[in-house]
Amino acid sequence: MTIIIHGLAASTCTSRVVATLIEKEVVDYVIEPVDLVSGAHKKPEYLALQPFGVIPVIQDGDLTLFESRAIARYICDKYANQGTALYGSSLTDRAKVEQWLEVESQNFHLPIGTAVFELVFKGYRGLTTDDSVVEANLSKLSSVLDIYEVHLSKNKYLAGDFFSLADLSHLPYLHYLIHVAKKGDVVTSKKHVNAWWEDISSRPSWKKVLELMAGN
Amino acid sequence: MTIIIHGLAASTCTSRVVATLIEKEVVDYVIEPVDLVSGAHKKPEYLALQPFGVIPVIQDGDLTLFESRAIARYICDKYANQGTALYGSSLTDRAKVEQWLEVESQNFHLPIGTAVFELVFKGYRGLTTDDSVVEANLSKLSSVLDIYEVHLSKNKYLAGDFFSLADLSHLPYLHYLIHVAKKGDVVTSKKHVNAWWEDISSRPSWKKVLELMAGN
Repeated sequence: MTIIIHGLAASTCTSRVVATLIEKEVVDYVIEPVDLVSGAHKKPEYLALQPFGVIPVIQDGDLTLFESRAIARYICDKYANQGTALYGSSLTDRAKVEQWLEVESQNFHLPIGTAVFELVFKGYRGLTTDDSVVEANLSKLSSVLDIYEVHLSKNKYLAGDFFSLADLSHLPYLHYLIHVAKKGDVVTSKKHVNAWWEDISSRPSWKKVLELMAGN
Repeated sequence: MTIIIHGLAASTCTSRVVATLIEKEVVDYVIEPVDLVSGAHKKPEYLALQPFGVIPVIQDGDLTLFESRAIARYICDKYANQGTALYGSSLTDRAKVEQWLEVESQNFHLPIGTAVFELVFKGYRGLTTDDSVVEANLSKLSSVLDIYEVHLSKNKYLAGDFFSLADLSHLPYLHYLIHVAKKGDVVTSKKHVNAWWEDISSRPSWKKVLELMAGN
């Protein structure tokens, strides 16, 4: 059964889902573009699938599922026996993955998401970047990444010595901040955070995501 | 092995963990109070366990784990075969639980957490409530709960017909908003949201948490 992803290859949250599918060696999926410009995500047929009116949402047979981190977890559980072991190999590995997924969700996401919105997505909508909001959020992000720096000086990846869903989940916004907004100093200036970023963003799965983002 | 919870029974995030333990019929745990007033959560010995300097963090044998939602998931996985089936009984049940846990984390938490901080926690610190921040966040929360209202008109609980970790995870902040801040109108004015709140907050597990919160 083909997994239908209603989203956009270039969107941060859609790319989190696609990266997970590729790491889990799931090939039977298709992205059905949602035309945000015409407001397709606010129309009744879309809201019937995703009542909050944001992308992405997937359909996998009878299951309709939204929230990109929940979709990623579902893919990891459904395809537990193939592809990269994104939850590691034990109960405690999975606990550590969930811990750092929550750090991404609760501590990392808001400052980087706000900065990227100001620097990139506002421009797409013809709105003006508020530099003071950018500065405040990059400062907050830097403080969060200072803690990552210490952690990554002792651990190759966030959950330990294996690449996991927690690492993967950081890729979309880091990509936008570093390569689209060109404001990646808070990342690349930190030795261990930068080495981690270079490692996880050079994986074949993420390179494939970038090709999809570029429409190739 | 006794699970040690470094936290405070009255804290929102600690109570999320304790409610999960009670639902999973885990009795061998102890809460080691962290003295926030004296800044114990910012001292080196605490930061060695929780580098972000917030509560709670647990120690379960060799495992040290923080982020309340990650701890709750770990408890559900470790004790999968006892207590309430907080992930339901199938892969798709678990997917729906994760979906609504993410809605709680991404859509519900920020407005209700900000409002409760202004209305309650600022007072504990001798700070003044900013009424405009409260108003803006209760308005956002109400919009989120309008979507819950439609969903709960067709589903007894968030993930379907079973009480789950997603429902449980909403309890701490709803309790503070309704019973401590006395600003629960945005919840209790919505018929189906209110019926859901009455149902989940009347569970024996939550009543036990409230006793612990009150120091009984």
